[in-house]
Amino acid sequence: MREIRLSDMDDIARGAAILGAGGGGDPYVGKLLAEVAIEKHGPVSVVDIDDVEPDAVVVPISSMGAPTVGTEKLPSGHEAITALRALERVMGKKATHLVPIEIGGVNSVIPIAAAAETGLPLVDGDAMGRAFPEAHMVLPALIGVSCTPMVIVDDKGNTMVLDTVSNEWAERFARAACTEAGCSVFTADTVLTGRQLKEGLVAGTLTLAHKLGRAVRLSPEPVATAAALLDGQLLITGKVVDVHRATTGGFARGQAKIEGIGAYRGMRMTLSFQNEHLVAERDDEIVTSTPDLICVLDNETGDPITTEGMRYGNRVAILGVPCDSRWTTPEGLRLTGPRAFGYDHDYMPISVGGN
Amino acid sequence: MREIRLSDMDDIARGAAILGAGGGGDPYVGKLLAEVAIEKHGPVSVVDIDDVEPDAVVVPISSMGAPTVGTEKLPSGHEAITALRALERVMGKKATHLVPIEIGGVNSVIPIAAAAETGLPLVDGDAMGRAFPEAHMVLPALIGVSCTPMVIVDDKGNTMVLDTVSNEWAERFARAACTEAGCSVFTADTVLTGRQLKEGLVAGTLTLAHKLGRAVRLSPEPVATAAALLDGQLLITGKVVDVHRATTGGFARGQAKIEGIGAYRGMRMTLSFQNEHLVAERDDEIVTSTPDLICVLDNETGDPITTEGMRYGNRVAILGVPCDSRWTTPEGLRLTGPRAFGYDHDYMPISVGGN
Repeated sequence: MREIRLSDMDDIARGAAILGAGGGGDPYVGKLLAEVAIEKHGPVSVVDIDDVEPDAVVVPISSMGAPTVGTEKLPSGHEAITALRALERVMGKKATHLVPIEIGGVNSVIPIAAAAETGLPLVDGDAMGRAFPEAHMVLPALIGVSCTPMVIVDDKGNTMVLDTVSNEWAERFARAACTEAGCSVFTADTVLTGRQLKEGLVAGTLTLAHKLGRAVRLSPEPVATAAALLDGQLLITGKVVDVHRATTGGFARGQAKIEGIGAYRGMRMTLSFQNEHLVAERDDEIVTSTPDLICVLDNETGDPITTEGMRYGNRVAILGVPCDSRWTTPEGLRLTGPRAFGYDHDYMPISVGGN
Repeated sequence: MREIRLSDMDDIARGAAILGAGGGGDPYVGKLLAEVAIEKHGPVSVVDIDDVEPDAVVVPISSMGAPTVGTEKLPSGHEAITALRALERVMGKKATHLVPIEIGGVNSVIPIAAAAETGLPLVDGDAMGRAFPEAHMVLPALIGVSCTPMVIVDDKGNTMVLDTVSNEWAERFARAACTEAGCSVFTADTVLTGRQLKEGLVAGTLTLAHKLGRAVRLSPEPVATAAALLDGQLLITGKVVDVHRATTGGFARGQAKIEGIGAYRGMRMTLSFQNEHLVAERDDEIVTSTPDLICVLDNETGDPITTEGMRYGNRVAILGVPCDSRWTTPEGLRLTGPRAFGYDHDYMPISVGGN
């Protein structure tokens, strides 16, 4: 896509929330912000990563926090721009492009709103190819790009600039500040030059989100359509029978239990999440684990269901979707594999037996 | 005093720890740092607040954290200078003077070490006239000086710059970062111009600390000497029979119980502290409360006993010492009176009955 118009927002938000693997925050508020900004300032230019000049200054802007809080504690709308301008002052140079740090819910939509407001072009891609819960879980980290300087802005106007000795320390201090601020802040960080985009981003994910959101909306079989577009495997269709969720340490953590229906009757699935879904077990066997995507869709409409939106009684179809291949390298798994989240098992590729 | 020489450090550290009302951290490590710095770079120039040019840039440097941690997690010695230089970059101007943010333990000694290392003169005064546990509890706040920009540096080299909408928010974010960093960081903040010093500082407290430390060392009756110099009242002499202490929320909090000895036999005192002593109750009657100083001395030597150093069996003399009068105004009490620490009673001037 060459530009994002008002009429694209609905499909992008839907597609991005599917790609967000349950996380990235509820896209609804972000979508409203983006729609208001596009209505006021006009469409947003979108640029392929191959068309960005080598010394461009590409700035990811995102929100951080527990999505359970994000649905109740609304952004004022100015935080993203405040974070961007503060980062520019720290860097001593202007951003030439914006980009989403992750594809998923609110965080793919916030940069669209900021691009509309600032007139900056948006790069078609993101730094994860999905959503992950922690700030250092980004592809640029694999090529030695630092998360800092990182600017953190809250809804009250408090600003913080971090400069840390590692990306993990940036995550720790940012999370502490985020928690203190009420579990919801905006950040600008992990700045890339144009020449780092090929290695530092997953290309074309805004276009993919748009295409996916549109296809799911129009298809008579939305779940099958989503699976086909994403090269995903159906893990189960079922009914959510239990959700345990707690907002701790600045994250929404928990587990959901699903009982199979239709062809899956008699099977049970347990999903474990930390903002995003991380591990899917079917009848006590791990069938998909981070960094691969576990995408929960409404079984009828194909609409994405976020971890904070999942409820008893939801009829869902759950897809396992392969992640960007850089995540399954040893360095990638060190950052985002099961052990990075405290699980006592290694990454295993998606396996649903018999399929 | 016109300069601080190596031979002065012992008396300054002793006097400052008495004035610290139990807090400000154990001065021992800070004293070593200052001694090393003076030995290497020579004596530190000390300037009266009246002799500082109106547009001087006066920077307080201090450590923040739980003193229980400070005694075990030693500073690398570079944090203070790193914080100073980072703050200068943010301000876009150089510091002309350093000053202690508080008189008390390590925090009166760290600026001496930094002054020796940088060659900057030290202003004879501090921003509290004692030690208080929280960053916004400073006299400059009463004349509208902001705590921010505040630079926070940890022992690993992580740096954070805060710019907040209120001093209370600066304290909250700084405390969260401090806790994440392991309960011990260095800060540079609350920058004053020369013309703000008279209203923003308590004058002459480095000289007072030196005089007090020396007098206590030389006096045959050190407790009486300290009381006389500080216009303090003896609240009790006794034996520490119980100390309850916990390091929570980035502070050392707790209570100590003292049983009277000598003329005070049969009496009991309870001290409540949050880094510093805040309330002294004698036989269930409040005899001294914040912002007045509660100073715990060794009953024999007059040496200060910090809240984290207090032990079962200590023989102590406890003084109530009037604070700087600006703290007992309504605005002062709002920041540092008993209710600011969550106590359900108003400030009452020192009262020991019968005396």
